[in-house]
Amino acid sequence: MDKLDDVLANVDANMDAALERLFKVIRIKSISTDPAYAAECQANADWHVADLKSIGFDASARPTAGHPIVVAHDRSAAGPSALFYGHYDVQPVDPLELWDRDPFEPTIQTLPDGTKIITGRGAADDKGQLMAFVEACRAWKAVTGKLPIPVTILLEGEEESGGVNLPGFLNANADELRADIGLICDTNMWDPKTPAIVTMLRGLCGEEVIIHAADRDLHSGFYGSAAANPNRVLARILSDLHDDTGRVTLDGFYDGVPELPDALRAQWDTLGFSSDAFLGAIGLSIPAGEQGRSTLEMTWSRPTCEINGMGGGYQGDGFKTVIPAKASAKVSFRLVFDQDPHKVRAAFRAHVQARVPADCRVEFLEHGSGQAIRFPIDDPAFGKARDALSDEWGKPAVFIGGGGSIPVTHQLKQSLGMDVILAGFGLEDDRIHSPNEKYNLESFHKGIRSWVRILAALAR
Amino acid sequence: MDKLDDVLANVDANMDAALERLFKVIRIKSISTDPAYAAECQANADWHVADLKSIGFDASARPTAGHPIVVAHDRSAAGPSALFYGHYDVQPVDPLELWDRDPFEPTIQTLPDGTKIITGRGAADDKGQLMAFVEACRAWKAVTGKLPIPVTILLEGEEESGGVNLPGFLNANADELRADIGLICDTNMWDPKTPAIVTMLRGLCGEEVIIHAADRDLHSGFYGSAAANPNRVLARILSDLHDDTGRVTLDGFYDGVPELPDALRAQWDTLGFSSDAFLGAIGLSIPAGEQGRSTLEMTWSRPTCEINGMGGGYQGDGFKTVIPAKASAKVSFRLVFDQDPHKVRAAFRAHVQARVPADCRVEFLEHGSGQAIRFPIDDPAFGKARDALSDEWGKPAVFIGGGGSIPVTHQLKQSLGMDVILAGFGLEDDRIHSPNEKYNLESFHKGIRSWVRILAALAR
Repeated sequence: MDKLDDVLANVDANMDAALERLFKVIRIKSISTDPAYAAECQANADWHVADLKSIGFDASARPTAGHPIVVAHDRSAAGPSALFYGHYDVQPVDPLELWDRDPFEPTIQTLPDGTKIITGRGAADDKGQLMAFVEACRAWKAVTGKLPIPVTILLEGEEESGGVNLPGFLNANADELRADIGLICDTNMWDPKTPAIVTMLRGLCGEEVIIHAADRDLHSGFYGSAAANPNRVLARILSDLHDDTGRVTLDGFYDGVPELPDALRAQWDTLGFSSDAFLGAIGLSIPAGEQGRSTLEMTWSRPTCEINGMGGGYQGDGFKTVIPAKASAKVSFRLVFDQDPHKVRAAFRAHVQARVPADCRVEFLEHGSGQAIRFPIDDPAFGKARDALSDEWGKPAVFIGGGGSIPVTHQLKQSLGMDVILAGFGLEDDRIHSPNEKYNLESFHKGIRSWVRILAALAR
Repeated sequence: MDKLDDVLANVDANMDAALERLFKVIRIKSISTDPAYAAECQANADWHVADLKSIGFDASARPTAGHPIVVAHDRSAAGPSALFYGHYDVQPVDPLELWDRDPFEPTIQTLPDGTKIITGRGAADDKGQLMAFVEACRAWKAVTGKLPIPVTILLEGEEESGGVNLPGFLNANADELRADIGLICDTNMWDPKTPAIVTMLRGLCGEEVIIHAADRDLHSGFYGSAAANPNRVLARILSDLHDDTGRVTLDGFYDGVPELPDALRAQWDTLGFSSDAFLGAIGLSIPAGEQGRSTLEMTWSRPTCEINGMGGGYQGDGFKTVIPAKASAKVSFRLVFDQDPHKVRAAFRAHVQARVPADCRVEFLEHGSGQAIRFPIDDPAFGKARDALSDEWGKPAVFIGGGGSIPVTHQLKQSLGMDVILAGFGLEDDRIHSPNEKYNLESFHKGIRSWVRILAALAR
């Protein structure tokens, strides 16, 4: 790997071109959850196929029942193989009026403290992060004509919308996709100076509930009190999800949730995490979860229940004295350790059914599920990746927990028997899923360099 | 009044022209709560001014801080005077996709049972009802050249959006507007064959609450549990508004709410009201209000609390794992007897404040208030009107309670010292405030004839 310095220099010399490519891909409005953007998702997949072909990958966009999955192979090297996963789709951009700039017209901005950021939807999640890996491959190929190890790249187009087609795709193409290690770039650093590998990820259970009452909207003056109000029914259902101490009330919800091992708790205590700073950065101050738990536990190792959306009746300007015919909510649960997403879903549905009057009707829509996952941090590949990150950032990389769910990690483990190194360069203030998403220019630049180093390290 | 039969015959002979005028006024999109329709509200007021001038009224559209108020006088007769009140504004039409026809392109449809209906937003509430009165005046003028009594017509343009400008207008023009009796056509018959005068009306207190939490939308994977979720805060607030027996929990809410007098309860018992039929007509079966109260009590003589709208977070297709920055709800209270709307509002705000975490912020928007009202049914004018209705419909008219709030009745009593006869020809299945609003052709036709008779009766 005597070429490492040359490859890193190549990255530095070609940052303008790398940014130009990232901007092109951010401009594609690949909002996977909204059927209106299906053609943009296809266009985004096609863009990656052409780009990966241009650096020698054998790439194609594979059709699914939803948006296509990009698969690309480069087997120019021997040695232990890697499967890199990223997703080219993005979250919706509403409320659009809260964006300072067009979410699909990326720019470079300089913050008052001198930090340079890349703005736009997907800048961090996950277009900037996945392109960091692609650019690392491009630099290796440009300097050495090949990659340090055999690499397969898999880019999903439905990560932000349930990802229902990926598990079947992985199963159907297991032999083609299986590798010695998985690599994912869709997570955060510990802080802007400290790289991290996420070794615990929470699972997810997403559910939508619709309460149907009268067969039409009613005038609350004539029918008030007498007619069931689905808003009131739903408010009770949602309110009863937590008790006064912040615990989730669903039957059996905490089954399979052990106390944190002392060793891991001790390691987390050394991280210098500040709940005040974490919440203060978003204008809050009081941890809202289970009483008696630290904020780090709440977001890393404890399960959660959040109402991501709810609505019923008149929400426009002014006032309308209506009793609506229906009301609905989207609820998600983040799962830890051995919680079973299917049992959680069943318990939620039972909780709802117990609170719906007999003359109302309830409808459920399933929105994805994935179990929590932990990786064996003693495996040599994890040590090599950690050392490579430490070299790039000049500071020891840390093994941390992760709050978000990346269901694919569980699927890679279960379907393909693979462990996954989750190394990402996002930051807490990237506002992913929110207006004004950004990715630090340093995250992109040093992210590319980090992957250059990790590829080299894995070949050793 | 030997001309009564001639006037009624004139009504019958001119129904096509009357319908054409009603259609013209329904076509005007006078949605008062939405600022986008301000010009349509002005156009609607102007239309009435021109129409009333054409039959000899001294009419004008008076500017207010909101939409104009139409005032028209005809003092061609001597005798006891009347002030007629109607409102030319209408409710919003969303959700538009639930309408079978364009809400602003009225039609006549024949139902399977042969009933003819007038379709369109405002067909019943209140364009059809107010035009029934105007057409009665037109017929009297056409046949006799004058009205039986002096009449002032006042048409408001903000009844569906809080009516904040009417009280000041009534006070400022009290001498011009004061009459011996008030007439309002904005209520329902007891059933399709039985005319009714509403002698008790519930009051209203409308309030909007907005819970602000983090200063941006958050990813629930990173911030779940730790960050306050305004949806969860709001669900608790709304759920806690009722206890398990259906009673409203606000402090002092039932102050000033006596048990129904035995005499009135006995009269109501004779009405043959069927809760099963009332709720069955809208696809429900279980009275949702206070346990131990009849459905008639719930809708006529007991106060209510309804969540007319609520919303927060992602409500589009698919799923978005967001913790929103804010969530909001529109809540209205129907008030009875001596409940004070200002005390109810204060109790609601205290209820909310007690449930908002210290690091969240709450915002309140006031949406109108009016006290409940009862009229002296022993007054001779009420007997005359009842007899006139009984003559027209061939069945004794009944004095009933009313669930909806018509704040102007209270204002007429308080500001101008007037009692009000609330005689309307709406029906329970008119779907006012809902998609597919309609007004029965018979309601319009016999409504006009009823007002012809009431005007004659009041002159006696």
